[in-house]
Amino acid sequence: MEHTLQVHNSLTRKKEIFKPITEGFIGMYVCGPTVYSDVHLGNCRTFVSFDIIYRYLKVLKYNVRYVRNITDVGHLLDDGEDRMTKGARMANLEPMEVAQKYSNGFHKMMDIFNTERPSIEPRATGHILEQIEMVQQIIDNGYGYEKNGSVYFDTIKFAEETGEYGKLSGRIIDDLLTETRDNLKKQSEKKHPSDFAIWMKAADDHLMKWNSPWSVGFPGWHLECSAMSTKYLGTHFDIHGGGNDLKFPHHENEVAQNIGACSCQPSNYWLHTNMLLMNGRKMSKSDGNTISPEELFTGDSVHVSKGYSPMVVKFFMLQSHYRSTLDLTDDALLAAEKGYKRLMEAHKNLKKITTENTSNSDSVNEEIQKYITAAYADMNDDFNTPRALSQLFALVSIINGFVDGKRDISGLSQETLESLQSTFSIFMDDIFGLKNDLESGDNNGLVEGLMDLIIDIRQKARENKDWGTSDQVRDKMKELNIVLKDGAEGTSWTMK
Amino acid sequence: MEHTLQVHNSLTRKKEIFKPITEGFIGMYVCGPTVYSDVHLGNCRTFVSFDIIYRYLKVLKYNVRYVRNITDVGHLLDDGEDRMTKGARMANLEPMEVAQKYSNGFHKMMDIFNTERPSIEPRATGHILEQIEMVQQIIDNGYGYEKNGSVYFDTIKFAEETGEYGKLSGRIIDDLLTETRDNLKKQSEKKHPSDFAIWMKAADDHLMKWNSPWSVGFPGWHLECSAMSTKYLGTHFDIHGGGNDLKFPHHENEVAQNIGACSCQPSNYWLHTNMLLMNGRKMSKSDGNTISPEELFTGDSVHVSKGYSPMVVKFFMLQSHYRSTLDLTDDALLAAEKGYKRLMEAHKNLKKITTENTSNSDSVNEEIQKYITAAYADMNDDFNTPRALSQLFALVSIINGFVDGKRDISGLSQETLESLQSTFSIFMDDIFGLKNDLESGDNNGLVEGLMDLIIDIRQKARENKDWGTSDQVRDKMKELNIVLKDGAEGTSWTMK
Repeated sequence: MEHTLQVHNSLTRKKEIFKPITEGFIGMYVCGPTVYSDVHLGNCRTFVSFDIIYRYLKVLKYNVRYVRNITDVGHLLDDGEDRMTKGARMANLEPMEVAQKYSNGFHKMMDIFNTERPSIEPRATGHILEQIEMVQQIIDNGYGYEKNGSVYFDTIKFAEETGEYGKLSGRIIDDLLTETRDNLKKQSEKKHPSDFAIWMKAADDHLMKWNSPWSVGFPGWHLECSAMSTKYLGTHFDIHGGGNDLKFPHHENEVAQNIGACSCQPSNYWLHTNMLLMNGRKMSKSDGNTISPEELFTGDSVHVSKGYSPMVVKFFMLQSHYRSTLDLTDDALLAAEKGYKRLMEAHKNLKKITTENTSNSDSVNEEIQKYITAAYADMNDDFNTPRALSQLFALVSIINGFVDGKRDISGLSQETLESLQSTFSIFMDDIFGLKNDLESGDNNGLVEGLMDLIIDIRQKARENKDWGTSDQVRDKMKELNIVLKDGAEGTSWTMK
Repeated sequence: MEHTLQVHNSLTRKKEIFKPITEGFIGMYVCGPTVYSDVHLGNCRTFVSFDIIYRYLKVLKYNVRYVRNITDVGHLLDDGEDRMTKGARMANLEPMEVAQKYSNGFHKMMDIFNTERPSIEPRATGHILEQIEMVQQIIDNGYGYEKNGSVYFDTIKFAEETGEYGKLSGRIIDDLLTETRDNLKKQSEKKHPSDFAIWMKAADDHLMKWNSPWSVGFPGWHLECSAMSTKYLGTHFDIHGGGNDLKFPHHENEVAQNIGACSCQPSNYWLHTNMLLMNGRKMSKSDGNTISPEELFTGDSVHVSKGYSPMVVKFFMLQSHYRSTLDLTDDALLAAEKGYKRLMEAHKNLKKITTENTSNSDSVNEEIQKYITAAYADMNDDFNTPRALSQLFALVSIINGFVDGKRDISGLSQETLESLQSTFSIFMDDIFGLKNDLESGDNNGLVEGLMDLIIDIRQKARENKDWGTSDQVRDKMKELNIVLKDGAEGTSWTMK
C-alpha cells in the first residue's frame, strides 16, 4: 500500500501531496450540523464523505483527531405566550431541548449510515467563553470594532494589512463591496458592507444569550468553528472540511478570524464536498424537488419507485467522487442497488473460496494484484471512491468466475486469495463501512441457520418429487422476498 | 388511572403527595455520569431507575423536562512526555477526546438498556461561563471567599445565617468539623474544614483550565449541577435525583450553592436510588467482587454461570424498588431470566386471544380489572416496580390459563381484553421499556416467517411419518437454541 496520498486543496485550487504537520498525526476539523431541524440528505452526503476520508486516513495508519462541531446556538425567539404565570418557566420553550432532540436525531441518522463518531464533537454553546476570548483577541489585534454592544470584523483593514481576505473563496474584496452595497442601509452599524458580526447584542426576545464585555448577546455564526478548532487542534492543523456552500462566507470568515486572532492560517488543506442534486436540479422544498432520508428508505415519496436501504443509498453516494455533484434519480438508485447486491454477494462468496494451487500459471495472481494495487492508488488520489469501486468490480467478475466455474481457479495462490480477502474486508468494513443490510440483520446467524435447513428440506423434497413441499417453500420465499439461486456449488439465497 | 402520585422525599425523609410547581409540567434533574471511564453496573441501575420514573411521569401525562448532565471536567494531568517537538499538539493527550469516547460508550450502554435520552444532556465543560457567574453570585452574597486564586464556600457562615446546611444529608455541622479536623493541615487555604472549593486554581500540568476573575483554573465538582439545573430548569424545580452516594457531600453542597447564589432551595423533591451489591457485598475492584455490564451480557466472569441478555438484567433491576439495595447473584439472575421469559411469552400470547363472551359471569373481568388497578396504584406509590410486576404476574397466570384452556375464557368481555392488552403494552413498552431481546431481533418478521414455514413442514412430516425430516428439524432447532412447544392452539417457539 503506497502512502503518497494526494488531496485537492481548495486553498490552492490544486491537487497536492499530503504532508501532515506532525508525522503520524492528523488534525481534521469538519463543520457539523445545525441542530434546529432534521438533517438533510445533502448534509448526510457531506458527513458520509468525510467519514470515508477519516476511515481511510486511519487505514493509512495515521492517528487522526477528527473534530466535528454541533451548531446549537439557536436563533429561537420567545413566542410571547406566557402560557401560565410569569414563573412558569417549565411551560416555556427551551432552545436546548430542541437542540438535544435534533442532535439525537442526527446521531441516529449517522448510525444508520454506519459512520463513525468523530473524536470530539464540541457544541457551540459549550464554548462561549472561548469565543468571547477570541473576539477580544481580534479587537486587541485591531481587526474588530464594537458598535452598540455588537462587535464586527473589519474586513477592509484585514484585507489591506494581510492580503488574506478572499483567498479561499476567490472573492475579491472590491466585488464584495459592490455586491453588498445595496444592503448597506440595513447594516448601518458596520463600517463596510463586507464586515461581519463576531458578537451580536441580543434583542429582548432572543432566548439564547450570554453575558460578555460588550453586551448580553451571542457569538456570530462564523466564530464558533474558529474557536473550537483552535481549542482542540491548535492554531494550525492539517485538514478543514465542509460542504461547498460553506466556502463563502463561512470558511472565508473563519480564516479571517483565525488570522485576525492568532496570526495563523488555520488549516493546511481545505476540502470541500459538492452538492447533492435530485433529477438534475437543486433540492428545494418550495418546488417540491426534495426527499428526506426517511422517505428515501421507506419509498414514501413521489420521487422514488420504492424504498432503498441505507447501505444502498451510501453505496450510491460512493459511486461519485466527493468533489463532483451527485444526481439522485430513481434509475440511478435502482442501478446502485443492483451493483451493491453484486458486490455484497461476491464478498460473501469470497469467504468460501479455497485454493487448489495445482497450476503454475501466475497470470491470475498478477491480474488480481493489479486491481488491488489500483484500488488503493485510487483512494490515494484524493479519495476517489468511484474509481476504487470500479477496481473492486473487476475483482467481483473474477470471483464470480471462480464460483460459477467459468474461470480456472487452479492458478490462484493462497497468498493472492488472502490478499483478495483482506482487500475486500478493508474496503467494505474499514473504509466504506458497508454492512449487509439487505440480509438477515444482526441475529447471530439465526436466519442463516434457518435458511440452511429450509434449503436442505427443499433439496430433499425435489429429489423425492414432493412438489407440495417444494411449492410451499417457493411461496414462502416469495412472500418473504427471499431469492434462491441454484448453482454448481449448491443453492444460495439473497434478499430481493 | 389515579393521579395521586406519592414519592419518597429525601429532604423530609417521608413519602409525600407529589405536586408539581406548574400544573402539567415537571422539571427533573438527575446527576449523570463522569465520562473518564466505562459506566459501572451500579450507575446503570441508577439511570435505569430514573428512566422508569421519567417514563412513568410521561404516562401520567406530565410534560417532563428531564435534564441529566455529563461530567466531563476531567482531572487529567499532562503526562510530561513531549512526544515529538514542542509544537506537536496533535501527539498530546486531549481530555475531550477521552470524554467523547466514554460519553459515546455511555450512550451506547443506555441504548442497550433501552432507556430514553433525557430532554437535555448538558456537559459541565460547556457551562464554565455559567459556573463562573454562580461563583461570583456566591461571593457577592457573602458565602464565598477567595484564597490564592481558589474560591471556597463558607459553610459555617452559611449554616449560621440560613440554618440550611446538613438538612438533606442529616449531617450536623459540628460533626463535620470534628470529622475533617485531621485533614486541616492539608487544607490550609480553607477557613473551616467543612468548606469546599467552588473554583480551583489549576496547577501547571492540569490539562483542563479556563480563565476566570480569580485564576486560570476549573470549577469545583459540585458547582456544575447547581449551574446547569438553574440554567435549564430555573432556580426552583420539581425533582432532583441521583445515587444515594451523592447525597453527601455532592447534593448537600449543591443545595448550599443554590441557596447561596439564588436564595432558593433548588428542588421540591429529592429522590435517591440505592446501591447495587454483588453476592451480598459492595462491588469493588480491589477484592475482585465486581462485574461489568459487558461481562454480565457475555457471561465472561467467574461470578455468573452464563450470559444474561440486557433485558433480563433490566427486568432483574425492576424486581427491586429503587430505594432498596439490589443484590446481584447468579441464582437471582437465573430466576429473573425465567420470570422475564414467562412475562414476554404471556405478552405475546395475549395478542392472540379473542373473546367469546358467551357467559354472563363478570368475575373474571372484575378479577383482571383489580390487578390492573393495583399495578398502577403500585407505580403511584413511589414507583414501586416490584409490586407492579407482581400484579402483572397475577395477570400472566390468568392469560396462561386462557391459552392452555385451564381457565374458562367465556366470561371475558371485549372491554376487559382490550384493557388487559393496553395495560401490558403500557407497562412493557412505555413504562418499563422491555423489548424481547431473547427472540429474533429486529428483522421485520423474517425469522417469524421462516419459523412458520418450518413448523408447518415439521407438522406435515410428522403426519406423514417422515421421521427423517422431523429429526432434521429437531436437530437444527437444538443447534440454534430454539425451543418448540406443542399446545392446543398449535406449535409455538421461543429462544432458549
